[in-house]
Amino acid sequence: MKQIAEIFSQGEEIVCGQTVDSNAAWLSQQLVELGFTLKRHTAVGDNLQDLIALFTEIAERADCCICTGGLGPTIDDLTAEALSAASAQPLQFDAEAFAEIQHYYARRNRVMPEANRKQALLPQSAVRIDNAYGTAPGFALQFKRCWFVCLPGVPSEMKHMFTALVRRQLLQSFPLQPDCLVSLRSIGIGESAIQQSLDGIQLPAGVQLGFRAAPDEVQTKLLFPGDFPETDKQTCVAEVAERIGAYVFAIDGLHESQGDLLEVVAAAMSKSRYSLALMETASQGLLAAKCLGRDWLARVEINLDWGRNTGSLPVDPSAGDLQQIAGIWAEQLKAREQTDFALVQLYSGSAEDYLHKDKSIVLYNALATPSGVISTQLNAHGALKHKQNQAALLALDLLRRHLQNKCL
Amino acid sequence: MKQIAEIFSQGEEIVCGQTVDSNAAWLSQQLVELGFTLKRHTAVGDNLQDLIALFTEIAERADCCICTGGLGPTIDDLTAEALSAASAQPLQFDAEAFAEIQHYYARRNRVMPEANRKQALLPQSAVRIDNAYGTAPGFALQFKRCWFVCLPGVPSEMKHMFTALVRRQLLQSFPLQPDCLVSLRSIGIGESAIQQSLDGIQLPAGVQLGFRAAPDEVQTKLLFPGDFPETDKQTCVAEVAERIGAYVFAIDGLHESQGDLLEVVAAAMSKSRYSLALMETASQGLLAAKCLGRDWLARVEINLDWGRNTGSLPVDPSAGDLQQIAGIWAEQLKAREQTDFALVQLYSGSAEDYLHKDKSIVLYNALATPSGVISTQLNAHGALKHKQNQAALLALDLLRRHLQNKCL
Repeated sequence: MKQIAEIFSQGEEIVCGQTVDSNAAWLSQQLVELGFTLKRHTAVGDNLQDLIALFTEIAERADCCICTGGLGPTIDDLTAEALSAASAQPLQFDAEAFAEIQHYYARRNRVMPEANRKQALLPQSAVRIDNAYGTAPGFALQFKRCWFVCLPGVPSEMKHMFTALVRRQLLQSFPLQPDCLVSLRSIGIGESAIQQSLDGIQLPAGVQLGFRAAPDEVQTKLLFPGDFPETDKQTCVAEVAERIGAYVFAIDGLHESQGDLLEVVAAAMSKSRYSLALMETASQGLLAAKCLGRDWLARVEINLDWGRNTGSLPVDPSAGDLQQIAGIWAEQLKAREQTDFALVQLYSGSAEDYLHKDKSIVLYNALATPSGVISTQLNAHGALKHKQNQAALLALDLLRRHLQNKCL
Repeated sequence: MKQIAEIFSQGEEIVCGQTVDSNAAWLSQQLVELGFTLKRHTAVGDNLQDLIALFTEIAERADCCICTGGLGPTIDDLTAEALSAASAQPLQFDAEAFAEIQHYYARRNRVMPEANRKQALLPQSAVRIDNAYGTAPGFALQFKRCWFVCLPGVPSEMKHMFTALVRRQLLQSFPLQPDCLVSLRSIGIGESAIQQSLDGIQLPAGVQLGFRAAPDEVQTKLLFPGDFPETDKQTCVAEVAERIGAYVFAIDGLHESQGDLLEVVAAAMSKSRYSLALMETASQGLLAAKCLGRDWLARVEINLDWGRNTGSLPVDPSAGDLQQIAGIWAEQLKAREQTDFALVQLYSGSAEDYLHKDKSIVLYNALATPSGVISTQLNAHGALKHKQNQAALLALDLLRRHLQNKCL
């Protein structure tokens, strides 16, 4: 039986949108890795009745809830008061917590404001969680079904307390068996096309299939139970990867993480000490910008209007087939810059097509390699920035396919 | 009586923490500005029973709920099914929605996968919300007390649909008295420095002051009650703007929105039919990439390692003061490209400094104008991508200051 966990965030700044709640995502990842089933995130503002109602709800349906925020010294910090009221146990002055808070101010040669005294009031059955980086101690308590862990909202304090104290305590208190998530990361193929390629596949019982479309890639996710046999897992992942094909650039969760498309390319380029010269048109510097800090990128040219302005490459692009021109330019660029690879990106479609979200452009990528030229012809569509990002990534993906020996 | 609103986000990637839910924050800000009282955010995963339970809860306690995610073509996209089950109304095939989805694929010369047919199934009473940027149509429906608005989870699609369609519809359906939010948008100055510059300022009663640090700018926010006198508002905003000074590049909420830094620059460049030549070093193509689709950008050079490789500009940069070199190069670039302006960005600091999040680099920007050269010397710090973005924006900001006649 899996343990159900929830995340709860307190604060008007979260509910009103001034702060993006990154604590919830971080804590969820930690709990998933520990083997909890995450069911819900909730955020409410600094209202005592709303807080009491929420704690009472969660106490009925979750085994564990990590709460952040509402532990500060001001009147709108209500977590301890609300949990005390919800669970019908009085607040109690914790002398050790108070000494810690006084100590915090003493170390900084500051006088403790009287308001901070409030932070030493904890519900009667609470176990204190010391905060080495701030004034707000955390605490944990059992209320009905749920073990509530209350931590400060300041991300650095919260993370430190979770890592140093809470994680171990959860592993001791709950019978956890972590799941294993495997992500097949792909580019150049959409979510529904991947689903079609997997049509009729027989996944072993207990394995869950899911998809996630991120701006730079589509992830096909396989969630295996913690006790799933390792060789069966490998076989299952291999079959899914085989079906999706050369679009898969990395698989996370089997061995060490390989990273995103750029990191996969960068690792291969650095390992072989390869160098690259690049000419961008459609992505207008975005691929170069993504490669900041990568020393295998030796030369970048940006051709803003390659139809009228051929830059330093002496070919008239209106004269022939675009794919062929891209290939010739790539070979010339490689020879001139004396790099291992040269990547040239051209496109057809007017400036109006590019700007218009309903119009496509056609990308012609050519890669000159030590063993000849390879090329792709692909469509990019959607809003301007989306086309631009696709143009940058699909050019880089041609290099990735060559480096991984996965050319179509 | 204020209208109660909630935000609901669907997706395992949110609940399990792979994605930080920035949609919830964005939507909350929009709803607060419209005059709603935000009470709660909730996120649950792709589980039909959990979704039904949540929709049923929200239907009892909120007047409006904006939902994101779960509208895609795959089997784990369950929003329409769950709302249909919760509100006991059948799913119905929407022929117009289906035609839109087919049209989306046809425009891209792609065959619609059969899976996408599912996206045209909407609960019986649903009002469709067309999605001009993707395949997933949104929809809205009344269920008990609550008006549910369901939008895709992809932020660009969601934001466009909210701005273009949902906002107006909410204003028509609810008795809202929006507050008036004025944002002073600045670059090159931090939140605490702005706060210092405003020290001791007397704001009229009822006006709330707040700050928001976004990646590309810092916003100083003044929230005026809906019935605040217009001239007093203008006076108050002018005083705050005066205090912050030339860092302010735009003020939103008084008249029409002027947009972000690039949009402010682009409007001025286009209006005067100016042209720009650009040489990037530290930002390595990021500024050019941001300027995609702007035809006043006439020429871009990227100097990957400007200390060793001076590109086509015949000056040895090790010979003198960097600010002076940037100025000389800018004049040469302007003369050679025959543009109205030329912007040259240099920097000092080793590759190691640039990569290290605790080390700074110094940026030297020079702008050659028809009336001579102006320049800035500024620090960039933080993680690699943060420094790169600052380098791109601070170079652009020099052009903005000249165009707005706000040079220091």
